[in-house]
Amino acid sequence: MKSKIPVAVVGASGYTGLELIKILLSHPYFDLKIVAASEEGDSIDTIHPSLKGILNLKVKKADAKEIAKKSELVFLALPHKTAMGFAKELLNEGARMVDLSADYRLELEVYEKFYCPHEDKENLPKAVYGLPEFYRKEIAKADLVANPGCYPTASLLALLPFLDVLDSSYPIFIDAKSGVSGAGKKCSEKTHFVSINENIFSYNPLSHRHAPEIEEKIFKISGKNFHINFVPHLLPVTRGMLVSVYGVLRDEIDVEARLREFYKDEKFVRVRDFPVDIKSTAGTNFCDIFAKRDKKALFVSSSIDNLLRGASSQAVVNANIMCSFAEDTGIPFLAYVP
Amino acid sequence: MKSKIPVAVVGASGYTGLELIKILLSHPYFDLKIVAASEEGDSIDTIHPSLKGILNLKVKKADAKEIAKKSELVFLALPHKTAMGFAKELLNEGARMVDLSADYRLELEVYEKFYCPHEDKENLPKAVYGLPEFYRKEIAKADLVANPGCYPTASLLALLPFLDVLDSSYPIFIDAKSGVSGAGKKCSEKTHFVSINENIFSYNPLSHRHAPEIEEKIFKISGKNFHINFVPHLLPVTRGMLVSVYGVLRDEIDVEARLREFYKDEKFVRVRDFPVDIKSTAGTNFCDIFAKRDKKALFVSSSIDNLLRGASSQAVVNANIMCSFAEDTGIPFLAYVP
Amino acid sequence: MKSKIPVAVVGASGYTGLELIKILLSHPYFDLKIVAASEEGDSIDTIHPSLKGILNLKVKKADAKEIAKKSELVFLALPHKTAMGFAKELLNEGARMVDLSADYRLELEVYEKFYCPHEDKENLPKAVYGLPEFYRKEIAKADLVANPGCYPTASLLALLPFLDVLDSSYPIFIDAKSGVSGAGKKCSEKTHFVSINENIFSYNPLSHRHAPEIEEKIFKISGKNFHINFVPHLLPVTRGMLVSVYGVLRDEIDVEARLREFYKDEKFVRVRDFPVDIKSTAGTNFCDIFAKRDKKALFVSSSIDNLLRGASSQAVVNANIMCSFAEDTGIPFLAYVP
Amino acid sequence: MKSKIPVAVVGASGYTGLELIKILLSHPYFDLKIVAASEEGDSIDTIHPSLKGILNLKVKKADAKEIAKKSELVFLALPHKTAMGFAKELLNEGARMVDLSADYRLELEVYEKFYCPHEDKENLPKAVYGLPEFYRKEIAKADLVANPGCYPTASLLALLPFLDVLDSSYPIFIDAKSGVSGAGKKCSEKTHFVSINENIFSYNPLSHRHAPEIEEKIFKISGKNFHINFVPHLLPVTRGMLVSVYGVLRDEIDVEARLREFYKDEKFVRVRDFPVDIKSTAGTNFCDIFAKRDKKALFVSSSIDNLLRGASSQAVVNANIMCSFAEDTGIPFLAYVP
Repeated sequence: MKSKIPVAVVGASGYTGLELIKILLSHPYFDLKIVAASEEGDSIDTIHPSLKGILNLKVKKADAKEIAKKSELVFLALPHKTAMGFAKELLNEGARMVDLSADYRLELEVYEKFYCPHEDKENLPKAVYGLPEFYRKEIAKADLVANPGCYPTASLLALLPFLDVLDSSYPIFIDAKSGVSGAGKKCSEKTHFVSINENIFSYNPLSHRHAPEIEEKIFKISGKNFHINFVPHLLPVTRGMLVSVYGVLRDEIDVEARLREFYKDEKFVRVRDFPVDIKSTAGTNFCDIFAKRDKKALFVSSSIDNLLRGASSQAVVNANIMCSFAEDTGIPFLAYVP
Repeated sequence: MKSKIPVAVVGASGYTGLELIKILLSHPYFDLKIVAASEEGDSIDTIHPSLKGILNLKVKKADAKEIAKKSELVFLALPHKTAMGFAKELLNEGARMVDLSADYRLELEVYEKFYCPHEDKENLPKAVYGLPEFYRKEIAKADLVANPGCYPTASLLALLPFLDVLDSSYPIFIDAKSGVSGAGKKCSEKTHFVSINENIFSYNPLSHRHAPEIEEKIFKISGKNFHINFVPHLLPVTRGMLVSVYGVLRDEIDVEARLREFYKDEKFVRVRDFPVDIKSTAGTNFCDIFAKRDKKALFVSSSIDNLLRGASSQAVVNANIMCSFAEDTGIPFLAYVP
Repeated sequence: MKSKIPVAVVGASGYTGLELIKILLSHPYFDLKIVAASEEGDSIDTIHPSLKGILNLKVKKADAKEIAKKSELVFLALPHKTAMGFAKELLNEGARMVDLSADYRLELEVYEKFYCPHEDKENLPKAVYGLPEFYRKEIAKADLVANPGCYPTASLLALLPFLDVLDSSYPIFIDAKSGVSGAGKKCSEKTHFVSINENIFSYNPLSHRHAPEIEEKIFKISGKNFHINFVPHLLPVTRGMLVSVYGVLRDEIDVEARLREFYKDEKFVRVRDFPVDIKSTAGTNFCDIFAKRDKKALFVSSSIDNLLRGASSQAVVNANIMCSFAEDTGIPFLAYVP
Repeated sequence: MKSKIPVAVVGASGYTGLELIKILLSHPYFDLKIVAASEEGDSIDTIHPSLKGILNLKVKKADAKEIAKKSELVFLALPHKTAMGFAKELLNEGARMVDLSADYRLELEVYEKFYCPHEDKENLPKAVYGLPEFYRKEIAKADLVANPGCYPTASLLALLPFLDVLDSSYPIFIDAKSGVSGAGKKCSEKTHFVSINENIFSYNPLSHRHAPEIEEKIFKISGKNFHINFVPHLLPVTRGMLVSVYGVLRDEIDVEARLREFYKDEKFVRVRDFPVDIKSTAGTNFCDIFAKRDKKALFVSSSIDNLLRGASSQAVVNANIMCSFAEDTGIPFLAYVP
């Protein structure tokens, strides 16, 4: 029997922090030793009342030395910028880490253009992009895994099987729809119930920060330059994400067959023969994908849980790989249906 | 003072029938004399309990002779196929009519390919397509107006300003999102609350019957052939429709300016400088539109109330035009916000 | 033809302010001259984008002198405490007024116990409680009408027909369910979409400030003391309110007959023979009521639109009465169905 | 290590059937051998597409002999009436069983008054009511456990701690609010998205079939007769149930202390010091309870997941007890939050 590995969650008060805790509580080989945040807080079941009777660890102020001493692997669920400051310290102390923020996902130049000056240029090149289907070998050896954003995860899993057969002279359009939990726990006019309920709207169309993440990864994986046009929408649902990808094929190929062949060995990608919905993946690490074409016009639709496959469960899959556990160890696979 | 024109609503038990009744009850120049359906029914406030205390006309079995005798203008809110059988009789009796079904919207060949054999080939060529912004002159003289579908209304209003400047060698993609009321009052697995709530999915992607309606009208209005790829989705909201149009421009033009110029005299189209939402148009006849581009990639977003601008209020605008009333007479303009 | 009366809305940026504006825009005898708020603001269609193309008055900083000069009747949609400061000035300037806040609804002692020290003790005794069914004569002569809260409106309309036949030695329980718009436009953890969606919970059970308002009015109207136990809940809907009243009858009477008799002349109360729902009243000034008993146990269920019958449309009904117009002049009666 | 017990789920195509399957798939000691229904069907992942990649057993036509041969314990998730016909056969074949229908919950006379003639009078007296907190000893020895309804589960857990201190000369009122999944998978006008969304209404007020179940169990457990007045509502949410209980105490006692004392050894009842919500229990077997009083008026609020604690997870707890496993073995405890 494998001995348990002590782990920590930093950024425990947010939605992705909660999801990490929920997964780790049921994980057979990880032992959740520390829950921490930027500031000291109440016990975790006061912050997340659904944990009452399950876990009552006190939320500690994040201290890199202590965390590195008491845990072997750290899940960082902090906002970007805060994350890199803390990650740097942790790496110095010898901890391994999955970072859920944007801080280590992009090349320096692209990061600084869309976010802010980078404060950990030393470790940035060492980070591995945590999309398991494409980087599992590199993840296995990494000390620092940059967990992909939810939009890039769903978009890349839909797009990558078709890069070889798409006409790159034509722009790609991605019409993405996200549940409100993706906007985080902080209240704002946009997340007010009355603003969202019975409504839908796009935000930052053609200028969202996830577009360059998608473009960069497409180039890295395929060596091709595509013009990605990304339009995200907020849906009146709590969790789930549906991404529609539109592009032009070079030839009139069998797109479903290509999809099946491409993902035939992947446990967490399900190729569907009917249009995907978000309820069938909400609560799980699955990405469901459907593809269809009319002449050379291609439509690919993918669905994930934005907080799980788009954040916390993918992070634990990455941690499993880093620790040589089976990828699906402790990973949720039963959807919140009905 | 104008004298009131007697009108009838046939197909009074459905959602669009109800919306017609609500508008006509407040209309200064139309006098709702008859509410009818395929079968005789209860009083209208039993079928639609919200009308209690307001209107208690008995729902009659639709009889063309009687309706033509008692009313000068008829709103036909019947399912396709049923509609044309009844419309034919009504026209023989000399009634004028706005038909909300698909039966007179398309050229014969296209209709029969996507629907069923046409049973009123004589009147089909006389029908005028009831998109007021483009056909108001023809509508004014018509006896039979074919009211557009909700998807074509929102799609055409978004697309038409850009046909001259779009590159027709590239396909156009339309990602449309509709409230559930668009699927009608009939219960089905798809309209069960549990299927829709906290969910979103596309249906009939690239093969919905509204795509040829859009293609045909684009050709008629612009003389150009575009390859339209239409993907409709069901949203977990009752009413409202958001349509995203994606295409490739020939040149890097100022798309907002073009939109403003194009609709500068149109009262029921509002050009927005921020992404449109459905709450701001739900309850009204407005179509809100927003456009943006990145290089030559164009994104246009339009929002309508699927039951009003996409059906009943547009039908009354058409009736206003047919009767030489001001187009906005009695038309709802105050949204259901908050 | 009646000449139009100039009116003002103070507190125009909130939800009830918007609803007042929407009603007044269609009102045949009121002329909306001024929209104001505590602080100067943008044009009203910037604050409420759904008003684009309809009204673009600039939101002025509320100035009692100017408002009293330019309008004959003022609708005050300010938070409690702010309201009385401003009302006092306005009354000094000779304006008549409907105040939608809590400031003039209660006796001094009760007000100060549940809210704060009262700053306009002089005018407080002159205020008339604006529940038209019970105070229309007094409202007609009033200069200051205190518009009831949404919970008291729905609760009193359900309860009052039964006060004579209820056993006052037994407590009355009121289980009330409100749409989120009742909590106002301000963002908070409680109004975050994720907190409300797919959820329901009570708040301030047995200690909500509307309970004493209900108790006081019951006593004033009936002369009887009842122990009111009030438990409000937040519903995952934007607008609407359902109130369930539970009490014990002294005798096994025909409760539906009593209800019908009691409200037989009231246009805005609809007695139903099936359990009421909120969709049939949302968008209107109606209060729908249903009553049933088992032995002596009584259940009364009432439904209103919290922003209309519970605030803005009731305010305009009061204004109609104050100006000797028909009570239903310009009042919305068509529900937001489907 | 315990060897696995082969089990069957009969009625696999409904919501509670799906929830049973989901729990059993993760259960360490039960081995799901058969999924069956009244009629033969497709593979289970065709009926429930979220199970794709997880379970693809074919749904068999329920055959008592075969099921009894291949499984030791059967979960019966059939409609009432169908259930007893099948249960009878199964018991004859020597199978043990948890029946989720109403067929064995009530005394014969009460059952026949509210449902239909009973067709298995022989086994009815042997059935044990499966509310673990009150009947665990009897459940351990039972061959036939009648799983409580969702409304009675939430109502009894709220009420039972207070029966000794409530004044039985006053009626008890129960205002219950249920998610739509409680109405089952069948489409109807009532479960149409448009009927439920942005709405709330009561149904069968004071005459729902769950009221006699509550009254009978109260009498059995406490020996006291209470007049239960039960008013259920449908909420615009998929899952979850909130029950408000109103009654009159004989004395002004500390109700929270009583609640804590009463449930101090119960793992699946959480006493809360703030009003309970449904999100904190949805997805789990927990029942959260909050109590407060004003003078002698008592308010108790309880929350459960209607499909889990109100059906499937409670059924598996009962099965655990029948098989001498720890009660919480394989039982879901992590809520679907956020």
